[in-house]
Amino acid sequence: MKKAIPSGENIIGFSVSKIAKDVMRSMNPATMKEIEGEFHEATSGEIDVAMEKATKAFQTYRNTTGTIRAKFLRKIADNILSLGDPLIERAMAESGLPKGRLEGERGRTIGQLRMFADLVEEGSWVEASIDTAILDRQPFPKADIRKKLVPVGVVVVFTASNFPLAFSTAGGDTASALAAGNPVVVKAHESHLGTNSMVAAAIQNAAMVTNMPDGVFSSLNGTGLKLGQALVRHPLTKTVAFTGSYRAGKALFDTANQREIPIPVFSEMGSINPVILLPKALENRNEPLANQYVGSVNLGAGQFCTNPGLLIGMDNEHLDSFIKHLVNGFKKVTPSTMLNENVCKNYEAVKTNLLEQAGVKMEAVSTDEGNISTGRPTVASVSAGDFLKNKDMQEEVFGPFTLIVKCQSEKELMEVVLNMQGQLTATVMGEEEEFAKYYHVIDELKEKAGRISFNNVPTGVEVCHSMHHGGPFPATTDSRFTSVGTGAIKRFARPLCYQNWQSNVLPLELKDENLSKIWRLINGEWTKKSII
Amino acid sequence: MKKAIPSGENIIGFSVSKIAKDVMRSMNPATMKEIEGEFHEATSGEIDVAMEKATKAFQTYRNTTGTIRAKFLRKIADNILSLGDPLIERAMAESGLPKGRLEGERGRTIGQLRMFADLVEEGSWVEASIDTAILDRQPFPKADIRKKLVPVGVVVVFTASNFPLAFSTAGGDTASALAAGNPVVVKAHESHLGTNSMVAAAIQNAAMVTNMPDGVFSSLNGTGLKLGQALVRHPLTKTVAFTGSYRAGKALFDTANQREIPIPVFSEMGSINPVILLPKALENRNEPLANQYVGSVNLGAGQFCTNPGLLIGMDNEHLDSFIKHLVNGFKKVTPSTMLNENVCKNYEAVKTNLLEQAGVKMEAVSTDEGNISTGRPTVASVSAGDFLKNKDMQEEVFGPFTLIVKCQSEKELMEVVLNMQGQLTATVMGEEEEFAKYYHVIDELKEKAGRISFNNVPTGVEVCHSMHHGGPFPATTDSRFTSVGTGAIKRFARPLCYQNWQSNVLPLELKDENLSKIWRLINGEWTKKSII
Repeated sequence: MKKAIPSGENIIGFSVSKIAKDVMRSMNPATMKEIEGEFHEATSGEIDVAMEKATKAFQTYRNTTGTIRAKFLRKIADNILSLGDPLIERAMAESGLPKGRLEGERGRTIGQLRMFADLVEEGSWVEASIDTAILDRQPFPKADIRKKLVPVGVVVVFTASNFPLAFSTAGGDTASALAAGNPVVVKAHESHLGTNSMVAAAIQNAAMVTNMPDGVFSSLNGTGLKLGQALVRHPLTKTVAFTGSYRAGKALFDTANQREIPIPVFSEMGSINPVILLPKALENRNEPLANQYVGSVNLGAGQFCTNPGLLIGMDNEHLDSFIKHLVNGFKKVTPSTMLNENVCKNYEAVKTNLLEQAGVKMEAVSTDEGNISTGRPTVASVSAGDFLKNKDMQEEVFGPFTLIVKCQSEKELMEVVLNMQGQLTATVMGEEEEFAKYYHVIDELKEKAGRISFNNVPTGVEVCHSMHHGGPFPATTDSRFTSVGTGAIKRFARPLCYQNWQSNVLPLELKDENLSKIWRLINGEWTKKSII
Repeated sequence: MKKAIPSGENIIGFSVSKIAKDVMRSMNPATMKEIEGEFHEATSGEIDVAMEKATKAFQTYRNTTGTIRAKFLRKIADNILSLGDPLIERAMAESGLPKGRLEGERGRTIGQLRMFADLVEEGSWVEASIDTAILDRQPFPKADIRKKLVPVGVVVVFTASNFPLAFSTAGGDTASALAAGNPVVVKAHESHLGTNSMVAAAIQNAAMVTNMPDGVFSSLNGTGLKLGQALVRHPLTKTVAFTGSYRAGKALFDTANQREIPIPVFSEMGSINPVILLPKALENRNEPLANQYVGSVNLGAGQFCTNPGLLIGMDNEHLDSFIKHLVNGFKKVTPSTMLNENVCKNYEAVKTNLLEQAGVKMEAVSTDEGNISTGRPTVASVSAGDFLKNKDMQEEVFGPFTLIVKCQSEKELMEVVLNMQGQLTATVMGEEEEFAKYYHVIDELKEKAGRISFNNVPTGVEVCHSMHHGGPFPATTDSRFTSVGTGAIKRFARPLCYQNWQSNVLPLELKDENLSKIWRLINGEWTKKSII
């Protein structure tokens, strides 16, 4: 089979464009060698064209029905599947992630596209609400007032290094933004330009064959500092979605707030995902717990935003024994290739810095030293007293690392929880009777995280209605919204209120007759009935 | 009856405090004389105590049931009613607003408190969502995942000069924040310190007699620049609600974004609320339309955030005739006392500046000149061509003023709409057949506003489920949220996800048995059924 060399052009609506001479290349992180394919950086002119086309496309796309958009989303899913093994191979070469993992991720990507297709085809997501008029109300008549969610306009999506498919070009952000009725302009990630190019072409084709407006989707190549900042500053950008590091996510958030017209930036910036190991659980399930966390910390070379970076327990013989098992486990882990050179270097630097903090004891590293492109699994420990003195210990170490915090008392455990930064997740491992006993600790933990799991590992984020993948700052820039699950669509919509409208121009979802058969709040009651 | 002199202390939880020697006094805007009562400015120590008490109170208040909080809210409403005429008289003296208006506003305030009481007592507002486990799913089992809204923590509420009751101490922001389970710290408005003090004492009493935790409510006196900024910067503040001018609202938004941990500021900053007068309506209903808008522009001395500041029509004989009627109407309006000296001075300054812009023609002022404390009703006109050249013409003139924009063509009308800033409301006055004919214009108008009314005046914001009082920047800092109606509660809550929790520690709303009988999304279907 002929090896696919992805196109190096920027995709701008239904066209392709490569004006700039400056090209970028992907590196294979395992071999540190360049991969075939030259990707042209987007010029400021090309950025403008993409944004203008997107804005123009919005005029028609915002008025498409959920059924029409569902066809588009499902065609994207089909097209991605049709790319077959070459897509997986390119993603493997660009990310260092293994085949099985990327096939799983492709499944998740397809699943998300189809989930949002189902969601908007069904239609109740628009939160239709109707309060009917009361013309004889005293002292003033009550007007007819209706409301539903409408799309916000052009959404800029940043792709994530650690999920080249599911949080990238056709990932959850793009799927939910398109589903809501917004055009999307994607910023390709420097480390998987080829994967991006292939998926972007699949989306472009889907838009064309399902008769979407030209400009509903574009994908531009460039660096975060230059292209990324330019897209966030662009006056036609209405909302931004980002998954990545705190530094980059916070920089985009600041840029957006300094605009003449500030716009929301939904940055999902990761966290250290504390795990509380309750005493009885440690006593009864010492070795299985250790094995479970050796697996979770090292999954995908620890490159998950939900990676458990902090294990907190009471300092006793059971914790000692747990650490012993953890040490044995970490020693045996084979280091994996990390996503790119930067991630790898950053892992070493941040980890080294943490290990140099007062009171931190290195417990174990993998026996296998790995090589320059891999992250060496590492586990360290520190007393709660030292941990509480030093805010730097809460910095995320993005990679296969975890820090054990040893508490001398329940009071100290509570102190650790109270001083925790905002997190995507928190986890409690305990025996049945312990959850009630430690409820005061769990109750405080609720203030610190967007999701709290019992006796589960935090890695593995289920895509469903009830998922919340978000959390208090610095985990994200807006704890009210999720980037995973059907709720993700709410980031890209705003309520619009229709007062005293005539039926013939009301949107379908708000007419008296419930033609779209959606759930509606009518005079305060949820119903699928029509108004008669 | 003895005249009530409101207490001048800061209310801090269940205590009162007046450490500072610096006192503030209210002015009667009609007489420009000081009113009885000295109000002690909050010191930084008092601010800290209020915030610490609020944070402590949150630990228990967040876990109260909706039924418990409903009792508290209803008691606040009852206490405000019990204040009787002295409250209305004090508010009249401090705001210059007439008795009937303030009695109506009191009714709205009481109504809002009771509406939020009903909302949280019923309980479905928490958006409970449950996805049950699928233990035999391949390749991985699906965990049990549940989600509901939880309160965010201490909310700082800024009171608004133009609604001393309904958007102030016990107004919609306070009511919705308390309803959601958050403690509230109010910043009293400099121009109605006495009204604030009386209402704050009513809330304090309600908190005490309904056994709420000490610190669930505080009210502090001070200036926007000093106290306001200090409250937004305070590390224990989690969210801010503000209604007022663009300058003040944007300054608070910027301060909040520059914090080490940024927090949301929901600033509702007003707008000029464009009204499009379609040709047939102008032809058929010339005089009634003019009378309707003379009333709407001058309602409450034009001091509404929904005041129609822009009337847009096609430049023809019917518009000329409409203007003639408007001019006649404006001439006859008696100037009303404005809210305070600043508002009055600002009205004159901004209006004068606007009248000096190129192309603006003064059409009429009220014949009655009024006095130094009143705002003189004024109507002006400008060609769409001149309007489009000059962004300053979109600045809000807070007071009894409106600007007529004359369009030469439909194309020009469309240009005016496309170049409009974000608005709280937009209005279209038209004959039945015109709404479909001009739908392309209305469709663009939807991008500019949070609420679009047909053949209604924008003033008068109905408090109900379907209301959206918000809109794209600069109308507000977050177009996704409303400050009026039941939806207002969503500003003060965030989703929390419960993964694999044991039933005994799950919140009531998420247990298998639907004990609170609320609407829940179970595996994607809305139902009131229990899980069996």
